[in-house]
Amino acid sequence: MNKATLIQEIKAKKSFLCIGLDTDIQRLPKHLLDAEDPIFEFNKAIIEATSEFCVAYKPNIAFYESLGSKGWDSLQKTMDIIPNNIFTIADAKRGDIGNTSALYARAFFDKASSGFNFDSVTVAPYMGSDSVKPFLTYDNKWVILLALTSNEGAGDFQFIENNQQEPLYKSVLTKSQEWANDERMMYVVGATRPEFFAEIRKLSPKHFYLVPGVGAQGGSLEEVCKYGLNDEVGLLINSSRNIIYASSGLDFAEKAKVEAQKMQEEMAKILAYNKLT
Amino acid sequence: MNKATLIQEIKAKKSFLCIGLDTDIQRLPKHLLDAEDPIFEFNKAIIEATSEFCVAYKPNIAFYESLGSKGWDSLQKTMDIIPNNIFTIADAKRGDIGNTSALYARAFFDKASSGFNFDSVTVAPYMGSDSVKPFLTYDNKWVILLALTSNEGAGDFQFIENNQQEPLYKSVLTKSQEWANDERMMYVVGATRPEFFAEIRKLSPKHFYLVPGVGAQGGSLEEVCKYGLNDEVGLLINSSRNIIYASSGLDFAEKAKVEAQKMQEEMAKILAYNKLT
Repeated sequence: MNKATLIQEIKAKKSFLCIGLDTDIQRLPKHLLDAEDPIFEFNKAIIEATSEFCVAYKPNIAFYESLGSKGWDSLQKTMDIIPNNIFTIADAKRGDIGNTSALYARAFFDKASSGFNFDSVTVAPYMGSDSVKPFLTYDNKWVILLALTSNEGAGDFQFIENNQQEPLYKSVLTKSQEWANDERMMYVVGATRPEFFAEIRKLSPKHFYLVPGVGAQGGSLEEVCKYGLNDEVGLLINSSRNIIYASSGLDFAEKAKVEAQKMQEEMAKILAYNKLT
Repeated sequence: MNKATLIQEIKAKKSFLCIGLDTDIQRLPKHLLDAEDPIFEFNKAIIEATSEFCVAYKPNIAFYESLGSKGWDSLQKTMDIIPNNIFTIADAKRGDIGNTSALYARAFFDKASSGFNFDSVTVAPYMGSDSVKPFLTYDNKWVILLALTSNEGAGDFQFIENNQQEPLYKSVLTKSQEWANDERMMYVVGATRPEFFAEIRKLSPKHFYLVPGVGAQGGSLEEVCKYGLNDEVGLLINSSRNIIYASSGLDFAEKAKVEAQKMQEEMAKILAYNKLT
């Protein structure tokens, strides 16, 4: 999916919500555990209940991988039922030397090889240019590069300043713009540090950010939007646990729908207030 | 496998060779392509031909993942035939927020969940402490953390100096020693930059390094050993393409054996010269 289509979908749905499919076999409603593929049954119900309120789904690959090849089958079936007008993100945090990143790109982008046809993949920047570029060789596919993450450990390295007082996450933001522009690259910017959004926006005015950390991790939607929105919206706000685990009972999908709709309605107000619809 | 056992194996085999199973369906000998599972057949032949000369196997996860769930099945079968006295490395470069890294740890360490029981996994440091620690909660399992990688892109961020002129890869080496000691953590240090080994050794005198980049990427075994060996050997030298693709014909396993033995013999000399056997 290209940028223009993504923006069109956001405006049509009045939503920039991404729903994280962090589907953990240990947290599923009990009545699903007898199904042949409980992970898929859960995802199917969540997708059917929430797809009108979100513009993106983000399967967190760790959760599928933790179940071995069975988990990859569940992921495959899940991807096959996500509506075509929804942007898909393989949240995989991959990155390796060039010849290996090329294989990770096949894993997420090359349907003939792996069965998967994601629109984007999250990539870790530590290994630099040749670890990222192989993901950029597919038409209309995106790299979503880690810049400033939402977790506590982000403080260990991402704020280390170089001799021009530029923290590492800013070096990532500037250096990586030599590899691809805002039509092919987005950045992960965590909602738990909204005070940094204004400066990050200055460095990457036209880019989309994938923003984790609203909800379970404590980030605020309003704060993020205040500093992060641009004139093409420029934000995909992720929510995972708050939506998919809103209830652990028979009504899990219904409750997920309620939570997704609540976020969509907040987003619609924010878009209207900022004259972005 | 614990450190003492690993050192014992190295001394018994007079080898600190790790063989990278970067098994690419597009590079397999043609006669294998008719097999039900060509990837597994290739690995099986390589393992049978080389296991007496190496102390570790390192499946490069990207290559299996690129084939979807079928690839994970091939990996599973491969792991099941690796002899128990050989150290296994999931070269996966994973790392995410704590609750997600915990699931990646299940993927590689928790046989009951995923089917896999690797001894170690490679982890990317960008997201800091809580992205690494979940991998350290399994007995006798190791984190192999990226420090200085062998690729060209390593230069983009890993050499950025902080205000004490300490490059990022050194910050990773020192900070991460707060999370685990040399009995639970190793570092990836690329062979393509042997001039840095002496200084890295000073910062982590007792750690094992997993060293990629000898062979296809141009690194020299002698140079690496000159500066990288410690009194417990402290090196696992990886070779992938040079060994597993030594021939693309019917004799691929035989030729792989020749290459593996050649490296083992060089290593035996180096160990003897350094009085490490």
